[in-house]
Amino acid sequence: MIFIDTCFGKKSDVMPIWMMRQAGRYLAEYKATRAKAGDFLSLCKDYKLASEVTLQPVDILDFDAAIIFSDILVVPLEMGLPLRFAAGEGPIFDEIITNIDDVARLDIKAAAKLNYVYDAIKLTREKLAPNKALIGFCGAPWTLATYMIEGQGSKTYAKSKKMLYQEPELMHKLLAKITHVLKEYCENQIKAGANAIQIFDSWANALEPSAYLEFSWKYISELAEYLKTKYPHIAIIAFPKGVGGFIECLEAKIDVLGVDWSTPLQVALKTPYVLQGNLEPCRLYSKQAIKDGVSIIKELVKDKAHIFNLGHGILPDIPVENVRYLIECVRNA
Amino acid sequence: MIFIDTCFGKKSDVMPIWMMRQAGRYLAEYKATRAKAGDFLSLCKDYKLASEVTLQPVDILDFDAAIIFSDILVVPLEMGLPLRFAAGEGPIFDEIITNIDDVARLDIKAAAKLNYVYDAIKLTREKLAPNKALIGFCGAPWTLATYMIEGQGSKTYAKSKKMLYQEPELMHKLLAKITHVLKEYCENQIKAGANAIQIFDSWANALEPSAYLEFSWKYISELAEYLKTKYPHIAIIAFPKGVGGFIECLEAKIDVLGVDWSTPLQVALKTPYVLQGNLEPCRLYSKQAIKDGVSIIKELVKDKAHIFNLGHGILPDIPVENVRYLIECVRNA
Repeated sequence: MIFIDTCFGKKSDVMPIWMMRQAGRYLAEYKATRAKAGDFLSLCKDYKLASEVTLQPVDILDFDAAIIFSDILVVPLEMGLPLRFAAGEGPIFDEIITNIDDVARLDIKAAAKLNYVYDAIKLTREKLAPNKALIGFCGAPWTLATYMIEGQGSKTYAKSKKMLYQEPELMHKLLAKITHVLKEYCENQIKAGANAIQIFDSWANALEPSAYLEFSWKYISELAEYLKTKYPHIAIIAFPKGVGGFIECLEAKIDVLGVDWSTPLQVALKTPYVLQGNLEPCRLYSKQAIKDGVSIIKELVKDKAHIFNLGHGILPDIPVENVRYLIECVRNA
Repeated sequence: MIFIDTCFGKKSDVMPIWMMRQAGRYLAEYKATRAKAGDFLSLCKDYKLASEVTLQPVDILDFDAAIIFSDILVVPLEMGLPLRFAAGEGPIFDEIITNIDDVARLDIKAAAKLNYVYDAIKLTREKLAPNKALIGFCGAPWTLATYMIEGQGSKTYAKSKKMLYQEPELMHKLLAKITHVLKEYCENQIKAGANAIQIFDSWANALEPSAYLEFSWKYISELAEYLKTKYPHIAIIAFPKGVGGFIECLEAKIDVLGVDWSTPLQVALKTPYVLQGNLEPCRLYSKQAIKDGVSIIKELVKDKAHIFNLGHGILPDIPVENVRYLIECVRNA
C-alpha cells in the first residue's frame, strides 16, 4: 500500500492522497445513504451503511486510503454519556462531567460496546482493494474530555480549562480513563483490519503550550506508544490542530504528523515525522487556488515522503469536480 | 505614562498591566451601567456611559491603561450595515456583502459618523489621571470583512474565504475600503485624545499564512504606517490572534505586538517588537495558576520592556479578587 509505505517514510513517485471528511456531504452518494440511515448517529451505528459511505469516496474518486465512517464522540457515548446531534447545533451531551463521581461512573470497558465500528472496519477491509489503506481513528483524550465537560462545542472551553487549572488531578483522572478506553478501542480497530490509526486533537489549540504538553500530548503519546509497541506495522498519525507555535516540541512514537492549514509546512518540516496535509480546504472553491496550493506543497516536500491531505475537513458545498481536479493536480507532474 | 514608555521600548521597574475586556461583565459596576444603557449597542453609542465603563477598571483595579469602551463592529455599522446583537448569538448583520455593488454602497465617509466614540474618548481622557494611558482601537480590515461577508461569527469563514479564493480582487476592494475608513477613524480617535491604538485581528487564525500576509497583514501594515507617519508619538499595537506558526514573518511599523496564549512568548520574542500578553485567561480561575503563569512570563521577558496582559479577553465569571491577585503578582517581585 502506497499510503502505508509513505507513512513509514518511503517516498514514491506519486504522492498518496486522502481527505479528512472525504465521506461527507459534498458527495450526493453520501447524502443518499445518510437519508436511508436517518440521523447521523444511526449512520454511525449501522455497520453496513457506515461501510458503504466509507467506500464511496475511494470508489468514486480513487483516493489512496479510506477512513472508517464514524464519529469521535461514540467513545464518550459508550462510556455512558447519552449523545444527540441537534440540527444546526452539533453534538450535545445532556449529562456532563463535573466531579470525581462523574468520572468514576464512566464505563472503563466501553471499547467492548463499539462493535458497530469494528464490524464496519471488518466489512470495509474485505471490500476495499488490497492496495488501498483503511484508516481507523479516535479523538484525542483532551478533545473528548472537552465535549464531556462542556456538553457541546465551545468557543472558550472555559469549563474544561476551569477544571484543568482548579482541579488538575481531576482532569488527569478523566484523561487517564479516556486514554485507557482508547487503547482498547484502537487495538480493536486494528484487529478488525485498520491499517493505520489517526488521533484527532481538534481542540489542541484551546490550550497554552505548557498545558497542552501536560494535559493532551502526554496522553496522545501514551496511546501511540502502547499501539506502536504491540503493532509496529500499523501507522500512527496524530493531528493536533492549531499548534504551529510549538509544533517542534511534540515528541511521540508516531509515524505521521497531520498539519493544519494555519501551520506553515516549512515549520512542520523541522519535526522528525512524515507530514500529512495541509492544503487550505477553502482553496477547493477555486481551480486556480487548487493548482497554486498543490504546487506550493509539492515544492516544499519534494525531498521527503509526504501524504497529501487538506489542512482540515472538506466543506459540504465543494463541487466534486474540484476534488477531481485536486487529485489530478496531486498525481500529475 | 509608564504604559506608553513601555510601548516605545523603555523597560521600567514595574511592568505596566491592562487586560483585554477589562471593562466587562466580571465587574458588578459594569453590569450596573450596562443595565442603565439597555442593550450593548446603546452602551457603545452613549458616550457618557461608555466613558463611565471605560474608567471603572482603572478606578477600581488601578490598571495602567484604559481602553475606550466600544465594539469593532461600529465601523461596518456606520459604513451602512445594520447591526444587532441577538441574545446568546452575538452580533448579526442582516445585510451582507456578496458583490462589487455591495462594496460600492458602503459609506467611505463612515468615520464622520462615529462621534459617539470620539466624544467618549475626549471625556475619558479629561477624567483619566495623567499617568494613565487611554487606548483607542479598531478591528483589522480582514476581521471586519469576515463579519460583513458572513453576517455573523463563523466556525469556518467559508463565505469569506470563498470570496478570497474565487474573487481575490473583490476581496481586496472591500479590504481597501475598510482600511480607508479605519485610517480616518483611528486618526479621529487620536485627535480626541487616545494615546495608543490597538488593531484587533481576532480572526487572523482563519487564514493560511500566505493569504494572511496578502489579505490581512498588508492592510494592518498600511494602517500602521499611515498613523505612525502622522502621529509618531502614538503607540501602535497589533494583535493578530493565533498566528504563532508564522509570527516571525510579520513586519510593520508597529510598536507593540499582542501575543495570544497559544503562541509561546519564546517564539514571539524573536520578533523586533515590544510584546504584550500573554497570560492564558483561564489561569484567572486559580490563584496558584495565576502565580505560576505570571512568574513564567516575568522570567521570559526579564531583559525587555513588556506590557502585561492576558492572551485574550477576561471571561465574565472570573472573581474580581483573582484579578486583584494577578495585579499584585505582576507588580510585586
